[in-house]
Amino acid sequence: MTASDWLHEQFEPTGSSIGFRVTRKLDEVQSPFQKIEVWESTDWGNVMLIDGAMMVTTRDNFLYHEMMAHPALFTHPDPKRVVIIGGGDCGTLREVLRHPGVEKAVQCDIDEQVTRMAEKYFPELCESNADPRAQILFDDGIAHMRNAEPASLDVVIVDSTDPVGPAEGLFNQAFFESCHRALRDDGILVQQSESPLALLDLMREMRAEMARAGFDSFQTLPFPQPCYPTGWWSCTMARKGGRGFGFREADARAKAFATKYYSAEVHLGAQALPPFVAQALGG
Amino acid sequence: MTASDWLHEQFEPTGSSIGFRVTRKLDEVQSPFQKIEVWESTDWGNVMLIDGAMMVTTRDNFLYHEMMAHPALFTHPDPKRVVIIGGGDCGTLREVLRHPGVEKAVQCDIDEQVTRMAEKYFPELCESNADPRAQILFDDGIAHMRNAEPASLDVVIVDSTDPVGPAEGLFNQAFFESCHRALRDDGILVQQSESPLALLDLMREMRAEMARAGFDSFQTLPFPQPCYPTGWWSCTMARKGGRGFGFREADARAKAFATKYYSAEVHLGAQALPPFVAQALGG
Repeated sequence: MTASDWLHEQFEPTGSSIGFRVTRKLDEVQSPFQKIEVWESTDWGNVMLIDGAMMVTTRDNFLYHEMMAHPALFTHPDPKRVVIIGGGDCGTLREVLRHPGVEKAVQCDIDEQVTRMAEKYFPELCESNADPRAQILFDDGIAHMRNAEPASLDVVIVDSTDPVGPAEGLFNQAFFESCHRALRDDGILVQQSESPLALLDLMREMRAEMARAGFDSFQTLPFPQPCYPTGWWSCTMARKGGRGFGFREADARAKAFATKYYSAEVHLGAQALPPFVAQALGG
Repeated sequence: MTASDWLHEQFEPTGSSIGFRVTRKLDEVQSPFQKIEVWESTDWGNVMLIDGAMMVTTRDNFLYHEMMAHPALFTHPDPKRVVIIGGGDCGTLREVLRHPGVEKAVQCDIDEQVTRMAEKYFPELCESNADPRAQILFDDGIAHMRNAEPASLDVVIVDSTDPVGPAEGLFNQAFFESCHRALRDDGILVQQSESPLALLDLMREMRAEMARAGFDSFQTLPFPQPCYPTGWWSCTMARKGGRGFGFREADARAKAFATKYYSAEVHLGAQALPPFVAQALGG
């Protein structure tokens, strides 16, 4: 490494890469599950990679974390109990806890080392970890959902890596059935759903698995995310009970906390899927 | 090069890079103005670079070209005469000519070689070049606008490279004054306005130069664009005469041509600037 070098993630499935100019590697740990690295960059703050894939940068993580939390929580009529599967960097947990109506938020990531690295290099993402409503578990998310009490949850957020390695089991029918059972009747499952430009097949397949597990309505919201392949990403909500996605727009407009990307207007705007995405998902 | 290698653009101002997996270089020409390369990629079709900067890929150019053309043309009440400055790949021209009300569209790019390469490697972008309403000039866009008849145009689209090299003069007050003079009273200037995440200073500066040239209302619309730095890009419209940006929504909904990204709903959605962008531009 020279004093200023470039770190790339070359993502084979999309044939595209994302990179940042970095100054040095701050840390690296091989956990029982994956290799976690943190680099210092010139323009993006710290950058965390898991098995070579960009996960979070200081500068752009707000896009992803806000969109994984607020659309689902402002769609559910009264979210009180939330579970986050994955999400070990704690950024989604922080956003969930901004909602005063949330009584309990459980974060269950299999890899404690992700959270330890986040505490050290992304402390702002961990600032709500001591909230009395938060419970942070280091456990298998698949087993956690399999063992969850039926009809006990309002929102399940799957904040996982891509469907390879430890996260593979978070994208199939069996896992979604566990989520469906654990959700109350008006519950919402939300999952990161890859690039709407380059990974539409994966998004379609994920929706099909959710449908086989009993979910009957879906809504995909795209958003920008520079550190992920193609720079354009999405979350997909699935609703238990066919209630659709009536958005609590007035509550979102009146929210008492600040956001950088999310707003009621951005939420509404994201519902307008570009024709090529709508066509691919409708077909 | 091996049979499959990676081509990166490392963009110094944002400290981020974009890359594609490529199989071979198809062509390279050094024009009097710049170096133009075309590569064959594994997943993105052909990729054109100018002086090492990604310009167009077969797969993702529709995002940019549709957003450079349709929002402006569906905002102007009755666009008949359009000038495109730059745009040598002819993709914006093609989108402009989809509007049946357009009587004349002049494309003025300084570099004929860009168009010659587009004809060869992106023929689909050039499919409207023989339209009798099209006029393709290879000339200095700054001089073209300086010499344009006052109050003769409805829409000016500045489809340029970044404000370095030959395009530098397309981002300053003098050029915008020429555009302002050439536009009719309800005319619209639209310019590609860089990344809303990483290049907000540039966007602010561009708006300030437009304001000094007499434009008094602005609207920035973000959109995804994987081949540009950060994967998130924008266009900015400036209106002559302070008429605001009343959108011909009914006409956009009833449009008789197909688009892949643009729709009336996407147009409305793009008007919802994320809070951090709105704050940066309002300040």
